[in-house]
Amino acid sequence: MRAAACILKAHDAKKITMSNETKQYSVLRWRAATSLRAVDELAVEEPLEIRVNGQPIAVIMRTPGHDLELATGFLLTEGIVQRSHDVKLSAVLDELGLEVQNVLDASVPELSDLNGLQRQIFASSSCGICGRMTIERVRIKASALNEGFSVNPTLLQALPEKLRMQQKVFSETGGLHGAMLFDHDGSVLAVREDVGRHNAVDKLLGWAMMNKLLPLSRAGLFVSGRLSFEITQKALIAGISYVAGISAASSLAVELAKETGMTLIGFVRDGSAVVYAD
Amino acid sequence: MRAAACILKAHDAKKITMSNETKQYSVLRWRAATSLRAVDELAVEEPLEIRVNGQPIAVIMRTPGHDLELATGFLLTEGIVQRSHDVKLSAVLDELGLEVQNVLDASVPELSDLNGLQRQIFASSSCGICGRMTIERVRIKASALNEGFSVNPTLLQALPEKLRMQQKVFSETGGLHGAMLFDHDGSVLAVREDVGRHNAVDKLLGWAMMNKLLPLSRAGLFVSGRLSFEITQKALIAGISYVAGISAASSLAVELAKETGMTLIGFVRDGSAVVYAD
Repeated sequence: MRAAACILKAHDAKKITMSNETKQYSVLRWRAATSLRAVDELAVEEPLEIRVNGQPIAVIMRTPGHDLELATGFLLTEGIVQRSHDVKLSAVLDELGLEVQNVLDASVPELSDLNGLQRQIFASSSCGICGRMTIERVRIKASALNEGFSVNPTLLQALPEKLRMQQKVFSETGGLHGAMLFDHDGSVLAVREDVGRHNAVDKLLGWAMMNKLLPLSRAGLFVSGRLSFEITQKALIAGISYVAGISAASSLAVELAKETGMTLIGFVRDGSAVVYAD
Repeated sequence: MRAAACILKAHDAKKITMSNETKQYSVLRWRAATSLRAVDELAVEEPLEIRVNGQPIAVIMRTPGHDLELATGFLLTEGIVQRSHDVKLSAVLDELGLEVQNVLDASVPELSDLNGLQRQIFASSSCGICGRMTIERVRIKASALNEGFSVNPTLLQALPEKLRMQQKVFSETGGLHGAMLFDHDGSVLAVREDVGRHNAVDKLLGWAMMNKLLPLSRAGLFVSGRLSFEITQKALIAGISYVAGISAASSLAVELAKETGMTLIGFVRDGSAVVYAD
């Protein structure tokens, strides 16, 4: 992979190949005792690697589209550039001269201390792992996901209320994400809360590891927020094969679930649910 | 700052000093034409610095509590440890022998390649900046926030619907965060969507920078999600002095807003709102 020959201006968005923002998936819709095969439109989630002067500095899990704006805004809010003419964004080309998807290189001529920048951004890491290297690593680990765990639809529908009941801080503030581990009869094993969705899951998995409960092949994970790639990835690492939540799943979460044999269920609310992978 | 002499076991949570999970703030509650001074309970948000063998590897914005679990789960899901006896977590002491708040050191004896680990975690950075160094930097920048921008309560109440109307992808998928820039008469300047809350804001600010609209002293920011520290911090860097949203603010967001003269308004829905800072 070499740096792109074609230097694009930051506002010249059309020259960057864009992926679609949504993608269609075949799902199963549950409502009461019926289930219906349907096609669902999911938000696409893909990694975007941002390089500065050829050096990778961050991988952002994002919805494709407005990628130049995203990279520009990221460089601004990380304090790397102050004005638009401080930076030129360009695509990266492979050996055959083809554009590498999901990678942007920012040329910042006046940046003197790239090592200092790397340390600074590295220190802010708070979103779990992403990017190709890690996806491959998870796929290897995930081959161990072979135990069947499931709960029946009635127990599943009771999970949101159980989570809410145990979210002490949420009930006081209305501002926290919750995550819950439950067993095959729907009993709550543990609930954790945090301002960060990933943190709530990390707290739960840390609790499980500290109590020598890994791998969690006989537990399911229920979350109050979206089912993103990083949530399903964390579940996989802990050996959880059943993940459900109140909101939508992203495209990459569904793909990871399908590849690894994980059950993934979203929109669990008001007596219905959407089964993305089973 | 030297490494702690007292090595704690991962399950020995009581020895780590814990902050509270919630904190009370004086707010103004708007409903219809009335406003009422009240005390609101907010989720606390604070940085937790995680070190491995004495080296800082990440700063996580989190709600204090279950910090040992969080650090353990983070080390697990980042692939740094596999079993609980691979790691011993300890507090960090300062020169006077006092425990440093919000820092945990993980002793991982079998970890050979700390540099490789740093590169790996650094590459996953996707949540914007956090930590002391950065908070200080923002405070300096934020001294420039002196221009008064506001919209009247009627215009404010119309913002959630305006955002929803322009969230093309959300309406298709139900799975995306939205962020919107608006001017003093409530007109929409731009809307961006993403699976990540921070990304939606970075896309907006990137758009503004590419169009030479910085600093955004005559625009307000409205977001579909929580008002976290990182959202308010991004707004400050772009010179935005008015930030509102549909959900709750965190403690650190309110403190940053108060220190810098930013207006911060949450729970804008159903004809009411909560003014955290003005």
